Amino acid sequence: MSERPDILVVGSVALDTVRTPYGEIVEALGGSAAYFSLSASHFAPVSVVAVVGEDFPAEHRALLEGRGVDLSGLETARGRTFRWRGEYGAELTHAHTLETQLNVFSAFHPRLEAQHRDCRYVFLANIDPELQLEVLQQMRTPRLSLSDTMDYWIARKPELVLEVLRQVDVALLNEEEARALAGESILVRAADRLLEQGAKAVIIKKGEHGALFRTPEERFITPAFPVEAIRDPTGAGDSFAGGFLGWLARCGRVDGGVFPQAMACGTTMASLAIEDFSPSRLAEIGPDEISRRVALLHRMVHFDLEPLF
Amino acid sequence: MSERPDILVVGSVALDTVRTPYGEIVEALGGSAAYFSLSASHFAPVSVVAVVGEDFPAEHRALLEGRGVDLSGLETARGRTFRWRGEYGAELTHAHTLETQLNVFSAFHPRLEAQHRDCRYVFLANIDPELQLEVLQQMRTPRLSLSDTMDYWIARKPELVLEVLRQVDVALLNEEEARALAGESILVRAADRLLEQGAKAVIIKKGEHGALFRTPEERFITPAFPVEAIRDPTGAGDSFAGGFLGWLARCGRVDGGVFPQAMACGTTMASLAIEDFSPSRLAEIGPDEISRRVALLHRMVHFDLEPLF
Repeated sequence: MSERPDILVVGSVALDTVRTPYGEIVEALGGSAAYFSLSASHFAPVSVVAVVGEDFPAEHRALLEGRGVDLSGLETARGRTFRWRGEYGAELTHAHTLETQLNVFSAFHPRLEAQHRDCRYVFLANIDPELQLEVLQQMRTPRLSLSDTMDYWIARKPELVLEVLRQVDVALLNEEEARALAGESILVRAADRLLEQGAKAVIIKKGEHGALFRTPEERFITPAFPVEAIRDPTGAGDSFAGGFLGWLARCGRVDGGVFPQAMACGTTMASLAIEDFSPSRLAEIGPDEISRRVALLHRMVHFDLEPLF
Repeated sequence: MSERPDILVVGSVALDTVRTPYGEIVEALGGSAAYFSLSASHFAPVSVVAVVGEDFPAEHRALLEGRGVDLSGLETARGRTFRWRGEYGAELTHAHTLETQLNVFSAFHPRLEAQHRDCRYVFLANIDPELQLEVLQQMRTPRLSLSDTMDYWIARKPELVLEVLRQVDVALLNEEEARALAGESILVRAADRLLEQGAKAVIIKKGEHGALFRTPEERFITPAFPVEAIRDPTGAGDSFAGGFLGWLARCGRVDGGVFPQAMACGTTMASLAIEDFSPSRLAEIGPDEISRRVALLHRMVHFDLEPLF
C-alpha cells in the first residue's frame, strides 16, 4: 500500500522475550504499535510514531514495511530498544512480567509531522497519559480517536487517564483497568461510572470472554472468536484495537451502526494474533481468513428474533 | 395454566439461607426444581418431581402453584426439608457453602407417574447421576432431555456423569465443571473433549460472561444480559435451564435453528432471577419484561454483516 496513511498509532515498538506453555521467543518484535499497525494494515494504511534504539533489527523493520506500514515516524534514538520479558501460566490469562527495560522509551516524546497530524484515525496506545494528551493536541481534526491505558497509569495518574477518556471518542480498557479506574467491582456498573465521568464511549476487553462496547445510549457485546490453539496471548488488545480502528477507517463511517462490525474485526484480529508468538500471524494472514472469521463470528451470535408470547 | 404438563423437572426443592452484600434471606424457597419450574412456567406448563419434609411451608407451595406448576410429584416425606446456607463476597461470583443439610433429600428416589413419563421435555437438575439415569429410563419418548450436574458428582462419579452426558440431548455445565470433567483447562478445548466423549450438545455457562452452545457441527455464543443490580446469584443456572427448555417447549421445535433464541430466553430468565433473593422475581415477572429483555439482547449482539474487502 502506497496510499496516504489514514491511521496513526503512537505507542511502543519493543523486543519481547516471552515464555508460554507452548514455547518461547527471545527478543522478537513486540510493543503496542507493532501489534496494532500489523493488525490495522489489513484494512487501511497506517503510520507509526514510536522510538527504537540503534540495536533494532532491520528484519523487524522490514516485516512492518512489508505490510505497508509507514515508518517515517519511527525514530531511532541513541541507546537500546525497549525490552519486555514475561511469561504465562497454563491458563494463559495473565502475563507475569519478569523484566521491563524502558531504555530509549523512557525519554520518548512523540513528534508528529504534518502527515501524522492529518491522519483521520488515531490510536493512543498504552503510554503515559500526558503524552497521549500531547498527541491529541497535535492532531488536526481526527474523525475518531481511540485510547488504551494500563494499571500502571491508573494507579499513578488516574486524573490524567480520566482526562484522556474524556477527550477521545472511544476508550479501550480491560476489565481490571475498568474496575480500578471506576472504583467499582461490578463490570456493568464500572462502565456506567466511566460514562458518568465523561467518557463518550468505552470498550471493555474481557479476554477470552469477549468485549463490551458502551455509550450512554448503546451497548453492544462481542464474544471472543474461539481459538483452540492459543500459543501466546501477548498483543491481543492492541491487535483488537487495530481491527477495530482499521475497519472504521476502511468503511469510512463512524455512526453507531458501524461499531458492532468494528468490534467483530477487532476480536478477529486478536484471535489471529494469539495463535502464534509475536505478531507473526498478523503479518502472514490474508483477507480471506479475516473475512471467514468475521462471518463465523456473525453466525455464532446471530439469531432471528421470533415473538415469544 | 391448567394444560397438561409439557416439561418435567426432577431436582431439589429446598429452604435457602443466603447472605450477599445486598441483604440476607432465611429459609426462603430454593432448590434447582423451584428455580427451574418458576422460570419455565412462563413458557409452558411444568411438573415437579422432588421431595420436601413435613416442615415445608404452605406459602412456598402456594407460590409455585400460583404460577401453575404441577406439584403432584412433590412428595412430602417424614423429616425435614433439604436446607442450604451460603454466602457471596463482593464480586458475587462464587457461593461459599456454610452448611448443607440433606435431610429428606438424602433418601430421594424419583418416582414418575404416567403424566410425568409422558412429558416431552425433561430437565435432570443437579442430583446424583445414578438418579438422573433412572429418570431417563422411566421417560417414554421425550423430545428433548437436558441435564445439569455439579463438581461434587464430577469428583465422585465422573463415569456416570459422562454417561448422563451421552444419554441426554443437551448437557449443561458451568465452566469449572466443564474443565474438571474434560480434564482440560482451555474452555474451547474442554467443550471439544466432551463432544469427543459422546455428548451430543453441551452448554457451558460462564456466569456474567454468558454461555456457549456446542454441538459437533455448530457453536453459538450468548452474552449474559447485563444486570446492574444483582442481589443474589443463587439459582441463575437453573433459571437459565428453565428459560432454555421453556422456549423449546413453547415453540415446539428442536432443530438447530431454534437453540440460539432458547439460549437468549435462558440468559434472560437468569438475569431476572439474580435481581432479587430466592426466585421471587421469577414469580412476579410478566411476559412483557421477558420479551423486552430478549429483544434487547438480540439488539446487543446483532450486526449486519458487510463485506470487508
